[in-house]
Formats: sequence, C-alpha cells, structure tokens
Amino acid sequence: MPEFNAFFSRLRDRIDANDTVVSVGLDADVDRLPEHLREKDLPRWAFNRRIIDATHEYAACYKPNAAFYEDADGWRSLRETVAYAHGKDVPVLLDAKRADIGNTARKYAELLDDVDAITANPYMGRDSLEPFLSRSDKGVFVLCRTSNPGGADLQDLELSSGEPLYRRVAALADTWNQYGNVGLVVGATAPEELEELRGEVPELPFLVPGVGAQGGDVEAAVEYGLADGVGLVNSSRGIIFAGEDAGERFAAAAGQAAKRLRDQLNRHRD
Amino acid sequence: MPEFNAFFSRLRDRIDANDTVVSVGLDADVDRLPEHLREKDLPRWAFNRRIIDATHEYAACYKPNAAFYEDADGWRSLRETVAYAHGKDVPVLLDAKRADIGNTARKYAELLDDVDAITANPYMGRDSLEPFLSRSDKGVFVLCRTSNPGGADLQDLELSSGEPLYRRVAALADTWNQYGNVGLVVGATAPEELEELRGEVPELPFLVPGVGAQGGDVEAAVEYGLADGVGLVNSSRGIIFAGEDAGERFAAAAGQAAKRLRDQLNRHRD
Repeated sequence: MPEFNAFFSRLRDRIDANDTVVSVGLDADVDRLPEHLREKDLPRWAFNRRIIDATHEYAACYKPNAAFYEDADGWRSLRETVAYAHGKDVPVLLDAKRADIGNTARKYAELLDDVDAITANPYMGRDSLEPFLSRSDKGVFVLCRTSNPGGADLQDLELSSGEPLYRRVAALADTWNQYGNVGLVVGATAPEELEELRGEVPELPFLVPGVGAQGGDVEAAVEYGLADGVGLVNSSRGIIFAGEDAGERFAAAAGQAAKRLRDQLNRHRD
Repeated sequence: MPEFNAFFSRLRDRIDANDTVVSVGLDADVDRLPEHLREKDLPRWAFNRRIIDATHEYAACYKPNAAFYEDADGWRSLRETVAYAHGKDVPVLLDAKRADIGNTARKYAELLDDVDAITANPYMGRDSLEPFLSRSDKGVFVLCRTSNPGGADLQDLELSSGEPLYRRVAALADTWNQYGNVGLVVGATAPEELEELRGEVPELPFLVPGVGAQGGDVEAAVEYGLADGVGLVNSSRGIIFAGEDAGERFAAAAGQAAKRLRDQLNRHRD
C-alpha cells in the first residue's frame, strides 16, 4: 500500500488545518450568475473570486467543473480562478472526467499542469488514464459509482464473477495506485455502495458528490468517504448559488452555506 | 428503426457527393506544427485552414479532438476551424468523449451548437448523455469498443449474461436512438468485434478510428463500419502530419495522404 503522495498529503494538511472536508464545486454557470456581474470582463472569474473570498475558510478544496469553462473566456476565467484559490492556499481539483487514447490523453494531462488533481473516466481502460496516473505529484479521482440515476445503466451491471462493474472498477483503480495518487468518485446517493466500496479499497480517498442539490446521505459520505481521514464531500450549486436571490449579497450566502455543510459533516467526523 | 436524422442525412449526402467515407482527424498538436506557422496568431487555426484547403475534397467530415484545443487560443482556433470547414460544406464531428450529470451535461451539450456531431462516453449512463441525445438534428457517437489496448480493461469484461460489456453498450445505444441520431465508436484494431457489432446493431453508423497511426484493418472498417452506406473511417496523425518533414509543403502531403486513404477505403466499398 503506497503512502499518500504529494497531493493527498497536501489535502490532508488542508483538512487538518481548517478542520473541513468540504469540496466547493465552482460550477459557474453563466446563466445563473448575479445580474450585476454579467457586465464585467470575465464574469465567471468575477463570480468565483467573490465566492472564494467568502468560502475559502471552509474549503478543503475547490472543484471547478470543466463544462462551465469550455470557451475562450472560460479558460481565462478558470486560470485566474485556480491562481486565486492557490493564493488562499486551497488545492484545486478539476472535474473534467476525461480519458482518451495515448497521444490525446497526454494532451489532456496538460490540464494537470495548473491544478492539483483531476477526475477521469475509466471506460477506455488503464492506458487512457496513464498520463494522469503517471503524474506522481498530482491526484486522480476515477469515476466509480456516480450519483446520477443513469449511473446504474453500466456501473451496476453484474459481471460473470458476480460483482457489479463499479466494484471491478474500484479494484482496478486500486491496482493503478502505484504512487498513492488515486482516489474514487462515489456518489452519496447510494450509502450502502459507499460502505461496500470502503471495505473493498480501504486506502483510496473518495470524492463524494451529491450531498447538496442531489440530496445524498451526509453521514454515510463522511463515515465511508474518508480513508485515514482523507477524502472530500462536494457541494456545488448548494453552496455557490445559495444566494441566488440575494443580489449583491450572494457571496455571503455562499459562505454561510459552506460553513453549514462543514459543520454538518464535522458532526460525523471522529 | 428510426430513419437517419438531419445529421446522418447530411453525412450521407456528403459521402455520396464526394465518394468518400474519410474522417480527417484535426488533432492539431501545437508541438508538431510546422515551424513557420508557430509564430502566427492562432497557429492551430493557421494549420487547420491549410489542412482543410488541401483535404476537403476527400473528407466526409472533419473530427477535431477537443484535447488539442483546451485553452483560450485553442477554443478560438477551433471556432474558426469549424466555420471554415462548414464553408467548404464539410460536417464537423467534435471528438470530446464527454458525459456528466444533468446540469453539467446540459452545459457540455452547448458544444453541439457550433458543430454537427459529438463523441460521448457511456460510463455514467443514459441520463448523462440525454442533453446530447435529445438534440434530434445532431449526431452522437457513443464510445463502444475503443482501439487502444486498455480498451479491453472494462469493455471486454464478461457480464453475467455472457456477453462482453461493449456489446451491452451497443444494445443500450440502440435503445437510445430515438431520433436516428446515434452512432458508435468501434476501433478498427479488432475486426472480429466490428463484424459482431454490425450484426448486433445493423442500423447504427460506426465511427472507426485506428486505421492510420494505429494500424487497424481497413477492409473490416469499411465492410462492417457502414450502415446502409453511412459511416466514417478516421485517420488523424496519418493525414495531418503526413508532411511533418516537408516544411511548407506539409499541406500538400496531407492532401495526398487523405486521397490515398479515400482510394484505399473505396476499393472495399460497394
């Protein structure tokens, strides 16, 4: 069993220093930004900066989802956001869910140059993730059991060995963990699966989405999501759009929502 | 069985008009562009424009892989490239391999606003692809059996029903094909799987990568890749970097490579 690598060690330090396992999802949907920011240059960056100011104290990491930045201004906003989060000493996990064949995956892995960790999709197999996995200083969270209803379509399929596909993916990811840099994405909407997977791969930290807008199980997320105290429980819209109707006070509302989630999670931590 | 939708009808027209099933992969890796283009504003766009000028006559579609455009200049280059390809009357398939939960997938689906079709990853299930699938005028190529060695890690796993996972994915994609807008990505590196899948889903056009740099089976790609004459056989590096050592004559070399592949494929078409 490899020790945690540089990324997970840094994450552990952050978790300990700020007493929080909250991942704040920066899903800066342009259509939902406050009116008064939309006129600015790079509205998503203006929004994220204020959200980070209000939430960083409660954040173990920031998790921008790449989907919300896939245009020229978006990539500039993302770059500014990452630098600003780092300025507040908070690691950044890019939720990209990428994978591709060799030379293309190598290109995707350049996304890791600026951030600290990434999410990746296992359907194309190990070599499609190798350029992520070989970055021994970064983190790679492999999709395992996702929190959406359709997650069952493939992930729950029973293999001839009797186990569901997602368990095999967990076992594979465990073998891919040469550097102590691998984690899993496991949704909070299926608590019994969280428990089962924690037993299967005791050393892998989980990123647990689905406790906010998706209504997942907070206690299970904490009890089974952490490996040796390290792991992340994410809320995106539940934090950043908590003040959607609060006008210029949107950021304060986001800060309160982040604090509330931190406290709620900490009640179940040891 | 739904009729081909607007995208596949357009693709069929293009295939018939230019007598070609070649997909030209625009993997404009900045590190491999000709020296004399690297000083230009938006080198990737400068490169793609010349490649399109030289190859469009032989192209049934262009397939830029999103990995090579994931930065601010990249997205601008991609937008120019798409518009230019459309100006030559060639459809554009964005090789993005995306999928995500509800509101995020909806954001990814905006990538389809400018292009004609997209590739998508099935691991997260139907609802993660719904925003692509519901675009009845566009095309969605679902990853099924990919051409990389690691493709076997998950895709070849035997289900309790006895079939490998990729066959189930093909069957699922067939049920997702409400609008005649769904195709599959099936690598040319496994000809017997191409044959098997063609039997399983006779109506779905395949996008067959892996005949160029990856050395797949050209005859099988044509024989089993097409559904009622419609489908695509892709080469990326084998075309666009055919003139990597040709200096300013790189585009002419790409044109010759595209013509060669078209002729090679047409020898096996009816």
